[in-house]
Amino acid sequence: MSKVSIAKGMRDFSAEEVSRRQYIISIIREVFETYGFGPLETPSMENLQTLTGKYGDEGDKLIFRVLKSGDFLKSVPENMSHDANTWSSLVSDKALRYDLTVPFARYLATNRNDVKLPFKRYQIQPVWRADRPQKGRYREFVQCDADVVGAHSLWQEVELMQIYATVFFQLNIPVRIRISSRQILAGMAEYANVPDSFLAFCTILDKLDKIGADSVIEQWEQIGVPKEKATKLLELFNLDAEKALGAFAEILPNTTGMDEVRFVLEKFAASMSENNNELVFDPSLARGLDYYTGCIFEVEALDASFGSLGGGGRYADLTGIFGLKDVPGVGISFGLDRIYLVMEEKQLFPETVLNAPEVLGIQFDERCGEATFNVISKLRAQGIAAEFYPQAVRVKKQMDYAHTRNVKFVLLIGEEELNKRVVKLKNMHSGEQTEVDMMAFMANARVYLGK
Amino acid sequence: MSKVSIAKGMRDFSAEEVSRRQYIISIIREVFETYGFGPLETPSMENLQTLTGKYGDEGDKLIFRVLKSGDFLKSVPENMSHDANTWSSLVSDKALRYDLTVPFARYLATNRNDVKLPFKRYQIQPVWRADRPQKGRYREFVQCDADVVGAHSLWQEVELMQIYATVFFQLNIPVRIRISSRQILAGMAEYANVPDSFLAFCTILDKLDKIGADSVIEQWEQIGVPKEKATKLLELFNLDAEKALGAFAEILPNTTGMDEVRFVLEKFAASMSENNNELVFDPSLARGLDYYTGCIFEVEALDASFGSLGGGGRYADLTGIFGLKDVPGVGISFGLDRIYLVMEEKQLFPETVLNAPEVLGIQFDERCGEATFNVISKLRAQGIAAEFYPQAVRVKKQMDYAHTRNVKFVLLIGEEELNKRVVKLKNMHSGEQTEVDMMAFMANARVYLGK
Repeated sequence: MSKVSIAKGMRDFSAEEVSRRQYIISIIREVFETYGFGPLETPSMENLQTLTGKYGDEGDKLIFRVLKSGDFLKSVPENMSHDANTWSSLVSDKALRYDLTVPFARYLATNRNDVKLPFKRYQIQPVWRADRPQKGRYREFVQCDADVVGAHSLWQEVELMQIYATVFFQLNIPVRIRISSRQILAGMAEYANVPDSFLAFCTILDKLDKIGADSVIEQWEQIGVPKEKATKLLELFNLDAEKALGAFAEILPNTTGMDEVRFVLEKFAASMSENNNELVFDPSLARGLDYYTGCIFEVEALDASFGSLGGGGRYADLTGIFGLKDVPGVGISFGLDRIYLVMEEKQLFPETVLNAPEVLGIQFDERCGEATFNVISKLRAQGIAAEFYPQAVRVKKQMDYAHTRNVKFVLLIGEEELNKRVVKLKNMHSGEQTEVDMMAFMANARVYLGK
Repeated sequence: MSKVSIAKGMRDFSAEEVSRRQYIISIIREVFETYGFGPLETPSMENLQTLTGKYGDEGDKLIFRVLKSGDFLKSVPENMSHDANTWSSLVSDKALRYDLTVPFARYLATNRNDVKLPFKRYQIQPVWRADRPQKGRYREFVQCDADVVGAHSLWQEVELMQIYATVFFQLNIPVRIRISSRQILAGMAEYANVPDSFLAFCTILDKLDKIGADSVIEQWEQIGVPKEKATKLLELFNLDAEKALGAFAEILPNTTGMDEVRFVLEKFAASMSENNNELVFDPSLARGLDYYTGCIFEVEALDASFGSLGGGGRYADLTGIFGLKDVPGVGISFGLDRIYLVMEEKQLFPETVLNAPEVLGIQFDERCGEATFNVISKLRAQGIAAEFYPQAVRVKKQMDYAHTRNVKFVLLIGEEELNKRVVKLKNMHSGEQTEVDMMAFMANARVYLGK
């Protein structure tokens, strides 16, 4: 018998972990729905060609491919030389979802006649990536996305920022939401004389936090940015958000990006006075360069270095790759695992998240057991979570189980209680024991359980 | 550009479908928790050897294998002759979850030092099978399982029957729960002189509904069952459940199975007087023969031919295959897709399942739009689901959208309303329009929306 183990990069989630994850998900879901987003679920597997070529060469390598069923070698010539790249599309025709965006685009393309625009969907599902597992990085993780497609209005950006602020307010995590625009980045590249090296310009900027200002200037110089312009830009990054708005507006050749960011900032501020989360302009923000075309966002916890808790942006064309033209949109995503880590470290999970049973019924012997079982059944019929210890083993062992399960009350019906038609109720926190008339308890359990 | 499509046997779920599925799942989940079961989630992928050899030869063929990442041909000799069976474990080391039972057993085995027995877990997750897709059969579907392991008590069977009855009562589906025992089947095979052909005996019996009594007798004869004994058994199957109990107790060599079924029937009847679902003894029930050892169950809707809505049974050894001995248990499963079909056909879904927005804010022009947006923001802050039409397009188009989205109220703030500081509220069901003071509406929207 081989030693059994969980697969690499995979996780089991215990009752407590599932409940905590569900707590986060339920808040995100409820806010999405309050803003008029409806749920969508797409299948775990897509046809291979739906996914390949959408995530760059590096991404393609991380897609989990599913072996054809039956004789998967059927379409491979017997003497074909072994080469993984050539072979993979011969032995595999399906793959696991790599993100939620491409399946959403596929959904829109395959349902183009039924979907009415504008279309607001949210999607909370696992995705899979064949990354090398490491601390905090798993091969299966849940993404929570909301997108609205089919309309250009900047009010949508405002709404999405409100959603970020509201979700993190409800989770009790103070966050800073940073906003910029792909057009501001393009303007900066133009100002820096390297409009044709836009991608490299951004990739270097994206490393600012890691490598520091001097290295950014140095690497920018290597792609042709004059030192004084690089220095000027880095200077402007240090301005506070208010001043940066004006300063960038001055140097950028085109102010559309600035105007858009300013619109979102103003309307957000006007409508979200009562929350502890801030939205700030951050010109050094450089994310998701391949398909974003307008505003871009990123969220992080205010006072911790957990990295990004979510991000998103506007795109001009989501579904062109699938032959459906003119579907612009804007979306955001929440990173469930990171949010979980923050909440765990800051002890932000309410104690009541895990629906632990209120009551455990102890089983003394067969006759008492049946009476106890009937009382427990009555509690359950009233919606009170309750357990019945299945066997009449030593009471000590049953009490240990009550501790393990973290129940609030233990219900004790022995020979004496049965004869007196009472139940004994032990409060496991205070240790206090009370005796209650059996019928009264069954009729009105919530009162005696202090609910 | 190739035509894009969803993968074979896979499904997208629209907002309405997701909401309806969640409605069913939330009832199942809540009842599970009321009975003291805690949630568990295992990963979608398991190591290949964890899954193979557990589901029989036919099952093994239906397991979706995941291609190794990187150079998946590394461990295949260049000249190795093409044979899918030999190759599959060389090019694949992981596979998708085929059911929830084997991953649960793997979880218990890998966490043997932390899991305290008895252990009650429920698990609601998708599974994947490479079945040929057909009506009602998909390659990805959700299973909802509850099991309790580590204790022998029959009270657990009673609780699981209560769970079935409660869930279907809450879903408003009248059902018949059928119960028998693997030991009763074994006794029948002994009575029929074919104790050594037990599996064949059961397989034939299992086809009773499809092929009819005469064919069952005929096929039983072929494996050595005397005609008069076969006829006698079939006769007993036609007795009503009450009489069958006595009749089988008479002919079976060992009555443990009968005693167990009778215990569950009695305790169930004593504790579940207030529900419309029945639990009956059905000696012709023959399911899950490979690992069940005690009571077995199956549920079906009373007045429709939708097939089984769930099933389960007791097993003596869940984790022996993974080197962990002496873990007996009992479990039940709900079939989400079948339950969904019944509820759809019988129109049992409450209308309020889909959290459609209460209100749509119409955008007349920029200035009015902003006022409307602010009112909508106030509604959302009060937890009222509301949408803001993102663009100031023709009002007719916005009203069409309101119909599509099935909102209850449309909020109209035009130039005139803005000057008067009022909002116009149109009830989309009655067509009635009312005018409300803007501040009063924002302060107390629920009242005006009749919530």
